[in-house]
Amino acid sequence: MEPNEEHNQDQLILSIQTQLRDLHNKQPTEETQKPTAEQLPSLDEVEEIIGYNFRDRSLLAQAFTHGSCRCSTSSYERLEYVGDSVLNLVISREDYFAYPDLQPGKLTRLRAANVDTEKLARVAVKHNLHKYLRHEKPLLDGQIREFMDAIADYPLHSSGLVNAPKVLADIVESTIGAIFIDSSSSIDTTWKVVKSLLEPIITPTTIQMHPVTKVTELCQKHGLKLQFVDLWKETGEIEVFVDDEFVERATYTSKRLIAQNRAANNAYNEIIRKLSSEEKNCDNG
Amino acid sequence: MEPNEEHNQDQLILSIQTQLRDLHNKQPTEETQKPTAEQLPSLDEVEEIIGYNFRDRSLLAQAFTHGSCRCSTSSYERLEYVGDSVLNLVISREDYFAYPDLQPGKLTRLRAANVDTEKLARVAVKHNLHKYLRHEKPLLDGQIREFMDAIADYPLHSSGLVNAPKVLADIVESTIGAIFIDSSSSIDTTWKVVKSLLEPIITPTTIQMHPVTKVTELCQKHGLKLQFVDLWKETGEIEVFVDDEFVERATYTSKRLIAQNRAANNAYNEIIRKLSSEEKNCDNG
Repeated sequence: MEPNEEHNQDQLILSIQTQLRDLHNKQPTEETQKPTAEQLPSLDEVEEIIGYNFRDRSLLAQAFTHGSCRCSTSSYERLEYVGDSVLNLVISREDYFAYPDLQPGKLTRLRAANVDTEKLARVAVKHNLHKYLRHEKPLLDGQIREFMDAIADYPLHSSGLVNAPKVLADIVESTIGAIFIDSSSSIDTTWKVVKSLLEPIITPTTIQMHPVTKVTELCQKHGLKLQFVDLWKETGEIEVFVDDEFVERATYTSKRLIAQNRAANNAYNEIIRKLSSEEKNCDNG
Repeated sequence: MEPNEEHNQDQLILSIQTQLRDLHNKQPTEETQKPTAEQLPSLDEVEEIIGYNFRDRSLLAQAFTHGSCRCSTSSYERLEYVGDSVLNLVISREDYFAYPDLQPGKLTRLRAANVDTEKLARVAVKHNLHKYLRHEKPLLDGQIREFMDAIADYPLHSSGLVNAPKVLADIVESTIGAIFIDSSSSIDTTWKVVKSLLEPIITPTTIQMHPVTKVTELCQKHGLKLQFVDLWKETGEIEVFVDDEFVERATYTSKRLIAQNRAANNAYNEIIRKLSSEEKNCDNG
């Protein structure tokens, strides 16, 4: 068996296990009892976590209601739409004042790193916000657990090496939208909550380079020809060649982008290893 | 001569004319005198136009300073970065309250229509804001004049049929950013200015469908197979085929997207014409 087949097989088994576990845990059939409001975790806890008390509690309930929930509360989508704009603005404003000499291109990259799906999904699980999500989509809980396991290997940010469930980022954004609406559009009140939730906020010194940028810059610096060979549609694989020689590959069948990021990361490490062993040989020879 | 060659030739002549005119009007050589602050149009006029008086006038000057200006004021880029976020948020908030039943997808399209480059460029020329731009890029004035001529044919929005100079949208965004910063992040103060500048704000009833969407939907409705043939790299042309038969083409050598939008628009009109003449024939036959 080829190594990538093994990987595919592993992934398939993992995916089936997850699905079975989820079906076992929660299967919304006609017979399933809809939880009553009293059976759901209290939203008081959410207010404690975020450090904000709502005037209009229905906004908070809405912020945690997924479209799959068969309940009378509207889903979080509209609040998420507003929250996304609010989040972009408060981060823009913060960075504008904090880094008066930073060029717009760098400000944009810094903001992107602070508001991207993985960063926000980390915020959600760090503060246990996912526990308050009201949904009836059996696969979600498994995806969230997988994400929590995966990020253990990357303390700050994986730069696209792990797959973050969008729903986790969504509830952070919808909560931010709800606070903004509830506080009569107070940027300062909203920022206070955002700041404490997003800590540690990514700065120009802690921002991580994207794996593809990293390997591209490394090759440029050493005059190496870099090539990605995209076999993703056929095998789920992305291969990396340097000076027409195979260096590394990665497989991730459920998302091309992650396969590419992993291939870039593997290649980066392999090139660094080769370069330093070449250096050693030069020193010895 | 083929019709599209003629079109290319026309464009070339127009472009040369514009460049000559600009060179004649303003050629920044070593000998050119830099205008003194007194020779520049007064920023008091801008404050009158936008209906906002700045506490910190240097923010306003910065908002109208292009990167090409050899002056001590920083360029508008950082303010534009902030203004873009502010604009997105104030439009999001407005639409969130104005259309409580609108789904997020439609809210997003509505916001996009109100903050896009063409809409903002129209705002700039409508209020004469372009006259206060401090720049030393010879081609800009010609591009702005061409834009002003082109939009005369499209009173509300051309939906991508004309090419809007980004610099015009930029100064609207930088002005919005400057007001936001100057007013200590007051969303309400900023919104008041944005609202009066952007009037008429695009609503769900006045939003225009994009030419590509429009022709796609028309073909779907009538069970017609639609195909775009992209010859842009070779000839600057996009051709449209319906049920494998050539229908229309358009050429716009300086931007593929505009060639495509024009081709879609031409095709839409042609299909409508054909459908209605078929209908007539059926009625008569």
